[in-house]
Amino acid sequence: MSKTDPGNYFEDFRPGQVLKHATPRTITTGDVALYNALYGTRFALFSSDEFARNCLDGRTLVDPLLTFHMVFGKSVPDISLNAVANLGYAEGRFMAPVAPGDTITASSEVIGLKENSNRKTGVVYVRTTGTNQHSEPVLSYVRWVMVRKRDEAAVVGEAVTPDLAGAVAAKDLVLPMGLRMNTRVYDFAVSGAPHAFEDYEVGEKIDHVDGMAIEEAEHAMATRLYQNTAKVHFNQYERAKDPSGRRLVYGGVVISTAKALSFNGLQNAGLILAINGGRHVNPYFAGATVFAWSEVLDKADLGPCGALRLRLVATKDRPCADFPDKDAAGAYPPEVILDFDYWAAVPKRG
Amino acid sequence: MSKTDPGNYFEDFRPGQVLKHATPRTITTGDVALYNALYGTRFALFSSDEFARNCLDGRTLVDPLLTFHMVFGKSVPDISLNAVANLGYAEGRFMAPVAPGDTITASSEVIGLKENSNRKTGVVYVRTTGTNQHSEPVLSYVRWVMVRKRDEAAVVGEAVTPDLAGAVAAKDLVLPMGLRMNTRVYDFAVSGAPHAFEDYEVGEKIDHVDGMAIEEAEHAMATRLYQNTAKVHFNQYERAKDPSGRRLVYGGVVISTAKALSFNGLQNAGLILAINGGRHVNPYFAGATVFAWSEVLDKADLGPCGALRLRLVATKDRPCADFPDKDAAGAYPPEVILDFDYWAAVPKRG
Amino acid sequence: MSKTDPGNYFEDFRPGQVLKHATPRTITTGDVALYNALYGTRFALFSSDEFARNCLDGRTLVDPLLTFHMVFGKSVPDISLNAVANLGYAEGRFMAPVAPGDTITASSEVIGLKENSNRKTGVVYVRTTGTNQHSEPVLSYVRWVMVRKRDEAAVVGEAVTPDLAGAVAAKDLVLPMGLRMNTRVYDFAVSGAPHAFEDYEVGEKIDHVDGMAIEEAEHAMATRLYQNTAKVHFNQYERAKDPSGRRLVYGGVVISTAKALSFNGLQNAGLILAINGGRHVNPYFAGATVFAWSEVLDKADLGPCGALRLRLVATKDRPCADFPDKDAAGAYPPEVILDFDYWAAVPKRG
Repeated sequence: MSKTDPGNYFEDFRPGQVLKHATPRTITTGDVALYNALYGTRFALFSSDEFARNCLDGRTLVDPLLTFHMVFGKSVPDISLNAVANLGYAEGRFMAPVAPGDTITASSEVIGLKENSNRKTGVVYVRTTGTNQHSEPVLSYVRWVMVRKRDEAAVVGEAVTPDLAGAVAAKDLVLPMGLRMNTRVYDFAVSGAPHAFEDYEVGEKIDHVDGMAIEEAEHAMATRLYQNTAKVHFNQYERAKDPSGRRLVYGGVVISTAKALSFNGLQNAGLILAINGGRHVNPYFAGATVFAWSEVLDKADLGPCGALRLRLVATKDRPCADFPDKDAAGAYPPEVILDFDYWAAVPKRG
Repeated sequence: MSKTDPGNYFEDFRPGQVLKHATPRTITTGDVALYNALYGTRFALFSSDEFARNCLDGRTLVDPLLTFHMVFGKSVPDISLNAVANLGYAEGRFMAPVAPGDTITASSEVIGLKENSNRKTGVVYVRTTGTNQHSEPVLSYVRWVMVRKRDEAAVVGEAVTPDLAGAVAAKDLVLPMGLRMNTRVYDFAVSGAPHAFEDYEVGEKIDHVDGMAIEEAEHAMATRLYQNTAKVHFNQYERAKDPSGRRLVYGGVVISTAKALSFNGLQNAGLILAINGGRHVNPYFAGATVFAWSEVLDKADLGPCGALRLRLVATKDRPCADFPDKDAAGAYPPEVILDFDYWAAVPKRG
Repeated sequence: MSKTDPGNYFEDFRPGQVLKHATPRTITTGDVALYNALYGTRFALFSSDEFARNCLDGRTLVDPLLTFHMVFGKSVPDISLNAVANLGYAEGRFMAPVAPGDTITASSEVIGLKENSNRKTGVVYVRTTGTNQHSEPVLSYVRWVMVRKRDEAAVVGEAVTPDLAGAVAAKDLVLPMGLRMNTRVYDFAVSGAPHAFEDYEVGEKIDHVDGMAIEEAEHAMATRLYQNTAKVHFNQYERAKDPSGRRLVYGGVVISTAKALSFNGLQNAGLILAINGGRHVNPYFAGATVFAWSEVLDKADLGPCGALRLRLVATKDRPCADFPDKDAAGAYPPEVILDFDYWAAVPKRG
């Protein structure tokens, strides 16, 4: 038996199969410092323990995207080591907050399989769950990836395609225990802006103005921090043979960079509650400057706080004052690299 | 009301105005690890909890420059987002030590305003204060920046220029509570050198010999860690239009790099007590190797320890064996990038 | 007396001399996060506090290589600042585990001196010991370096050459207190692979498949984190005069990168117990992709766990499917950069 892990190929997956991923990971303030250094995020909830404790009944928490990247990274060796492309996300819900000291384990259930007509590849749908040391789920999401077959001739089962929600319903959003964000506990004077739930309107678009270049060393450090092993991010020797000649940047780095940029306009919407969907619509290589804009898609009053459903669009080397977007046929300009749909908690003025 | 922060322009400032800056920041051992990785600093007080506890009656602390960068970073969005140049610092005093777990907030008071004769820009003087979670000031300093006017035609008030001290007086230096540095508590055998307060003479110059190159990824990570948002450090797309074509390195990165280099010769003078002044006399871009030399400007016996007033001069791609300096007219050679004047605590032999 | 440390030259060393190295260092979870981000290591023992506590009777620990780099770094200013080459390691034993919060001090004893026939340089052998805050040794190893003479005419003493073991004997391996790794406490389901002590055979070779490129910023950050001051890693201005024109990467970065790659095949052999030997057989410069393969040299049943003696060979820009190795005459292909011999603990199936 070879001791080297070749990863799974399309024909290795079975509907209902559960894969327990390797390497549990204790999240620390060291990881948080690196997250800050790599993206420059400024949301007060994750920057200040004092600020967090006011809103969370004495608790602190890390940026849910850090948890997402850690869980995603663990799933890579089993799910997407032989992937051609990461196609999308859906039904992502953060179910319990993660604080420094918590240890995260991840597993995935295969919920769909569909061979492509070329018979060289197929699409694998998995529901991945991150769990803390108390066996509580902290995050669950679906992603689908195009995976190579080991043997083109292999005969595979009937196509199974999961029925996925277009967005997480507001009633299914889970607030971190004890979370309350209103004028009594949320300090708008230091959060970066006075804008509350009441100030955002559905259809509103916000250009986040700022731009951020990412270096090879930066995306590689981020991706290694998450113990994501996808070869395309690290193996330059192999990548030199690709037409780009470059290492591909992990899409999560673009998500976190764009989310950090969104502070300028969404200063109080740092806390992601759900990931409704997301697509990396064009590749991003190190060196280009990332810009971003957001659109308010929906609003919901959750009681202890409000929630905004937001669309976050990121570009490379193209400022977003004119909100670059897909055309009527759904085609994106080449500078658009990310179209990400999520719910975020926001403080209420009341 | 736009939700994107455009920053303040010269005509937005008023004498006496107080700006409470966004994003309180909890300092952690993760930040300290990054500080070490980015500058390679070796001063024992900040490297070893055991060493610190011996000198600080059981307490530990982080490098005051880390605190400085954090406080400075917070002030950028309100003070210098539309700055043309950061002109200088004065009257900087560290008033209480910061340890991992402390949360820092920052605010600035406008203490001077002077429109330039071209009426396109003006100089804004602010006194910026960093405060910990107990509302104790940890740092106060003055800086002045040249800021653009939004509207050249705007009529502004009378010039107000603050009366700034050339240096912090020795009697105004604040020692961290419990600090004592003498042969009974200060372990010269592991601090890196036997040199004590008594061994330094006013006028003495020290070449720090070593050189340190800084990469784009390194200065960008440092500057993001401090949540400093100045576009010149990050937005490569915009910077490509500048004659340099390069991102400008945050001046604080040069200060910390030069301070770390100064270990070789000032091994026991790591603890900065005050910043008397500082100027970034030429721009620094990534890739060049930083060298540094120091001059002892003054000495003061503070009782529990000594203090040296030091001038730290940094260069790029020029070793400092011949102490490159400004000429009689005050003009600096193009390789000199920093002229920084500070007080540091040093152990006494007694 | 000059305050700048010129480092020691060959004629400054005496047999039996003990050098107490500067700058004790408290290891933190911040250092661990950087170690993860710089190498992408995935061994469960160092990634998950929960996993470690199961195997270590409630304790956690950091990767022994992090301790090695910290101790090595401290020895550089006194031992190898004027070194021409780092020639080898032997008799390395980890004697007590290091956990976040521990403070490490280092000292070296000169155990051998041998002038080279050209009289310009000589070989210095030192036994370096790292000690924790309880004065317990945590690591001891021998290394030998070629060091320049300050004055070629200086007359030096008789050659003294230490008698070094080819490998640490299995009976001399020290297990971390409380360590037990068997199916009752070691969770093979999340460690990354089911392979136990019983599954490895002497002579077995494993290609670790994956490749990892290292950027200038990455090796420089790692090396600064360890407070290693060797000029060749940092001073680009000086290095530009070298035929390579490049900064040399600290050999320890290659060791840690190769060790992290070895997870793919040696998932349960993360815990290094001893370093039998190691040579950096060709220089490595940033940008090249590191690959690695391993060979099982020996096995030993230690009671609470097994141990494998492993040879870890690393290459640059050359995949290792054909196990590139030295030839019969002992000459290495130019792509081989490391030949490292160590003992690692592995879980037993029993």
